[in-house]
Amino acid sequence: MNIYVDNAATTRMSDAAVAAMMPYMQSVYGNPSSLHTAGQEAAEALVTAREEMAALLGCEPREIIFTSGGSEADNQAIVSAARIGQRKGKKHIISSAFEHHAVLHTLKKLEKEGFEVTLLEVGSVGTVTAAQVAEAIREDTCLVTIMYANNEIGSVMPIAEIGAVCREKGVLFHTDAVQAAGHLAIDVKAQNIDMLSLSAHKFHGPKGVGALYVRKGILLTNLIEGGAQERGKRAGTENVPAIVGMAAAFKEACGLREQNAAYLTALRDKLIAGLSAIPHSVLNGDPENRLPGNVHFCFEGIEGESLLLLLDAKGICASSGSACTSGSLEPSHVLLAIGRPHEIAHGSLRLSLCPENTEEQVDYMLKAIPEVVAYLRGMSPVWRDMVEGRKEFIIK
Amino acid sequence: MNIYVDNAATTRMSDAAVAAMMPYMQSVYGNPSSLHTAGQEAAEALVTAREEMAALLGCEPREIIFTSGGSEADNQAIVSAARIGQRKGKKHIISSAFEHHAVLHTLKKLEKEGFEVTLLEVGSVGTVTAAQVAEAIREDTCLVTIMYANNEIGSVMPIAEIGAVCREKGVLFHTDAVQAAGHLAIDVKAQNIDMLSLSAHKFHGPKGVGALYVRKGILLTNLIEGGAQERGKRAGTENVPAIVGMAAAFKEACGLREQNAAYLTALRDKLIAGLSAIPHSVLNGDPENRLPGNVHFCFEGIEGESLLLLLDAKGICASSGSACTSGSLEPSHVLLAIGRPHEIAHGSLRLSLCPENTEEQVDYMLKAIPEVVAYLRGMSPVWRDMVEGRKEFIIK
Repeated sequence: MNIYVDNAATTRMSDAAVAAMMPYMQSVYGNPSSLHTAGQEAAEALVTAREEMAALLGCEPREIIFTSGGSEADNQAIVSAARIGQRKGKKHIISSAFEHHAVLHTLKKLEKEGFEVTLLEVGSVGTVTAAQVAEAIREDTCLVTIMYANNEIGSVMPIAEIGAVCREKGVLFHTDAVQAAGHLAIDVKAQNIDMLSLSAHKFHGPKGVGALYVRKGILLTNLIEGGAQERGKRAGTENVPAIVGMAAAFKEACGLREQNAAYLTALRDKLIAGLSAIPHSVLNGDPENRLPGNVHFCFEGIEGESLLLLLDAKGICASSGSACTSGSLEPSHVLLAIGRPHEIAHGSLRLSLCPENTEEQVDYMLKAIPEVVAYLRGMSPVWRDMVEGRKEFIIK
Repeated sequence: MNIYVDNAATTRMSDAAVAAMMPYMQSVYGNPSSLHTAGQEAAEALVTAREEMAALLGCEPREIIFTSGGSEADNQAIVSAARIGQRKGKKHIISSAFEHHAVLHTLKKLEKEGFEVTLLEVGSVGTVTAAQVAEAIREDTCLVTIMYANNEIGSVMPIAEIGAVCREKGVLFHTDAVQAAGHLAIDVKAQNIDMLSLSAHKFHGPKGVGALYVRKGILLTNLIEGGAQERGKRAGTENVPAIVGMAAAFKEACGLREQNAAYLTALRDKLIAGLSAIPHSVLNGDPENRLPGNVHFCFEGIEGESLLLLLDAKGICASSGSACTSGSLEPSHVLLAIGRPHEIAHGSLRLSLCPENTEEQVDYMLKAIPEVVAYLRGMSPVWRDMVEGRKEFIIK
């Protein structure tokens, strides 16, 4: 059996997205900035894609900037808000301890420039409350950037409430919605979101393309200077095929969102229930406010990388957490943020589902994973110490 | 007849590039940072693409960074060199007056930070000599950035000579090779190039992807912070399909380079000879050291935009200059740099050919363009004034 359950890392492009993209590679391949028919046909496709994205996000087309992906969108949103703040003498930014590195590393860069960053604690289930944000906002706060849903443990933040607090206090609010877009409801106006980042390849669209929603009136700072594309805010020939593919994928994902969520939640909860039966295991993330397709566990006494390799040998493509930090020997900053000690944080498993996954696959995983965990524990001297009472279990 | 002669703006993807890309959309779609098989297959494709690009540029694979395109590569190269210079107290940069805006606007940003920029004059044929560069280099020069070939008028710069001067003087040398890559010979080691930018969609590869060659030992500054992709120098999930497509297109373009150049040069020279017969017309750019597919003229007494629209109506997709600045009412900075007065600069036409263009198309254009120019002149009061002696011709 071949099971891909790493959809939080990236997804298989949908047939609709591929079909939408194809004509723009060899037929309507003009540069949208060109005056001639070939260019104007491409420009029209760009207009339509922007309108579609805007309609699905609840904003105006001119509030959408196309980027090369979620990381670029996060970087540009945060740097832009920082520059706006700087001009007003406001150099304090609020974020959370378990944001994606595209956010945290950008904040680190700003700290070196003299910005002060407050990273809110996320508690043991991994969430940020509007009350925490309200309490942290100061006179000199120029930005609150809190992710919509965590990419590792799947916790969903109360974005509308945080948005309301920020709007009331007159502070810009950005949300990294890379894991949420296409999976959770978004309405940037109703949710009082000022800036929102998304990435197409997280909802079965193409890689290398994303979008940044920016409420009109907010001046963007360019990351990439050059031509006047994207109203002068993002230079470089527009990636028309990918943008059109993203719009098609987003339309599909949003259209099927509730249906997919119900389907995925059932699979997810079956997996969670089954894996919870493994002794000395613990679910990470909010059990209730959780991405429909996210399952994330720590298993005591095992090492995540070995677990992944053995599961891979059984045809299961899973992850220990974020693909962006794999290869790093450091334990996940997300798991440390929710208070998992190092030993436990190393033994993590993320299964991120998509509608192509089946109940049959879930049943297969519910057989394979406990077996592999048991096998690895059988080889672990640490585990033996714990079983034989020479060392305490951390997960009871 | 349907004739696309705006290949300097963007190209039709080649069959080879599309074929190379396709498997990475729905079959090998994993995230290259993932440990499992699906991820590692994608990672292997990335390794191969990097090796192919490196071999064709004459560098090592680890000296290649994949970007979202030429503009991003230009921005990152220039900002990186500026930061290196800054740390040594060197804040002088040499470039030319007719670089692409991805270079000029980045330099403008650095000027605001206190860098001093010398823009070399490019003379009436539009070229920069190694002697000019040598003369302009100062003790505090940290970077020379000179394009390989101009995107509007097609002049080709003596890159190897400029590289030799820079290497001798110990100054970093970057070249924007967006118009050259796949069209002119590149060997970054032999040409003493320290950094080189290229863009796939200019050589029949996909849009939204490019590469930056950076000689090892040169520390890049990140434009996009986040995950550890591209050795920590460019965050964001790698755009595997586009990168693989770029490598396939580059391989094809480099393999056929001499053959294509010979074919295009013949078509180009026939067009140049034919259009030169139009009274009061002038060829722009170096007649000898010129991109094989570039034809660029100014016609007195007409307005470029009208010319393009009428040619479009006859099935000819051409450009007045750069697509990146179309829509702007300003005359081309490139044409002003080679000394064309405003009135003349507005009446420009660029035909940029590719191997799909035919001699039959050339013959059609050689009939259509003079007709359209004559028609527009017939309607122009300025032209009438010149013909009837009330106003001097600028182009004799």
